[in-house]
Amino acid sequence: MGKLVRFSISIEERLLSSFDELVRERGYQNRSEAIRDAIRRQLIHQEWEVGEEVAGVITLLYDHHRPGLSEALTQIQHHALPQVISTTHVHLDESNCLECIAVRGEARTIEALADRLKSLKGVKHGELTATSTGKKLV
Amino acid sequence: MGKLVRFSISIEERLLSSFDELVRERGYQNRSEAIRDAIRRQLIHQEWEVGEEVAGVITLLYDHHRPGLSEALTQIQHHALPQVISTTHVHLDESNCLECIAVRGEARTIEALADRLKSLKGVKHGELTATSTGKKLV
Amino acid sequence: MGKLVRFSISIEERLLSSFDELVRERGYQNRSEAIRDAIRRQLIHQEWEVGEEVAGVITLLYDHHRPGLSEALTQIQHHALPQVISTTHVHLDESNCLECIAVRGEARTIEALADRLKSLKGVKHGELTATSTGKKLV
Amino acid sequence: MGKLVRFSISIEERLLSSFDELVRERGYQNRSEAIRDAIRRQLIHQEWEVGEEVAGVITLLYDHHRPGLSEALTQIQHHALPQVISTTHVHLDESNCLECIAVRGEARTIEALADRLKSLKGVKHGELTATSTGKKLV
Repeated sequence: MGKLVRFSISIEERLLSSFDELVRERGYQNRSEAIRDAIRRQLIHQEWEVGEEVAGVITLLYDHHRPGLSEALTQIQHHALPQVISTTHVHLDESNCLECIAVRGEARTIEALADRLKSLKGVKHGELTATSTGKKLV
Repeated sequence: MGKLVRFSISIEERLLSSFDELVRERGYQNRSEAIRDAIRRQLIHQEWEVGEEVAGVITLLYDHHRPGLSEALTQIQHHALPQVISTTHVHLDESNCLECIAVRGEARTIEALADRLKSLKGVKHGELTATSTGKKLV
Repeated sequence: MGKLVRFSISIEERLLSSFDELVRERGYQNRSEAIRDAIRRQLIHQEWEVGEEVAGVITLLYDHHRPGLSEALTQIQHHALPQVISTTHVHLDESNCLECIAVRGEARTIEALADRLKSLKGVKHGELTATSTGKKLV
Repeated sequence: MGKLVRFSISIEERLLSSFDELVRERGYQNRSEAIRDAIRRQLIHQEWEVGEEVAGVITLLYDHHRPGLSEALTQIQHHALPQVISTTHVHLDESNCLECIAVRGEARTIEALADRLKSLKGVKHGELTATSTGKKLV
């Protein structure tokens, strides 16, 4: 955690009371936490837009019975060693696998890697979750 | 505009400086305006989730040469008089039309109306833009 | 409408039966229409990503009592004459206005215009709805 | 893989040629694969909307120096044993942690669990990625 500073904002009374209700419903401890959350969300959105170094998770759902698929998934990940941090494999049932691949790197490279994995034949669903290395988010 | 109040929030110094950069880049006049914007966005999201009275815009792209389509669009809108406020028709070229339908009503009713219009044969693209009646947003 | 062609796709039987259920629930007339819809959606997404000529709707919610706001909105739109096609103004109640601005132009220019309008002080909510000129969507 | 069936769809010639371009650019092997992908995406969307049994990944970015946070994260996950399948922890740098939590259960329960984890003080960013158990996706 970095040094804390305080600043004040002005807001219409009724808007604030609606916001306070929202803060309670979402389970935030206080307004500051909810606002910091909104700020960090916007910063992450921009890190990806500008193309900085980012972190993310590639989620894949696939059937491991599909011939050649597991090999293809492994091969692509091995060719992306600088980006792939770790892979968790979950056996959902006798056919369906859920794979969570934690990645890190330049935004465009990560997007291209996710596109390659998602478009493999036999991958039923793939999603890239964009997050951050956290450096600028303190 | 309602009565203005002020409150202060605590935030890490580095997070604040990243945020200030974002505020400048997006063209906001000051931090308060950017934060109020984020708050209003979350409130609108919730008005739709909870199913309150909302406002919105249904955007349709279609080819007016498609037989029966214009009639169907008009008929559906006439059967949704309580929800449809106004319709603007734009001639994009000799075939393509852009229609913006301003709507207001209970969230689920508006969603059902948008679904009906979007799924008509000949509608190339349809989108429901969720906004608010503004009452709770001050 | 252009010339119609047919092609066949192979699909798992159970996936098809789940899809047929979806087609019925969403109110599509047949599978072809649902699939064409999905295809057009992806094409529009790409027109915006690549930065081609696009069409869209800027939705604004604001309080017309805010001093100087109406003038600012009008002025920005007048400086964007090549992009702005038409503006519909809806009086939601004695304070709240809903404005739907139909726009057309190069994707980045439209995004910049929407950003300027949305970040004006007093605009409670702004949204850019991305659609297409329809040229490539047949 | 289930039994394969074929069906044909009709589509405008120009729309098909735009789609073929898209299929190439995204790296799909053929049209069928791209269309099955779009169909599965819509089915997943509906599994979550209707509230069926789903699978997902909760991505969390946080600073492990924050007092009490690691304990809180662990405790919440232990109270959600039926939903939490596995957790992968990645050390991004000396402060920042990336956590991928593979989950499975009824959609509303999963959403509530994600909300609890995301709103914890010190969690810089949290995201729930919606996927499927794959049962209906064949």
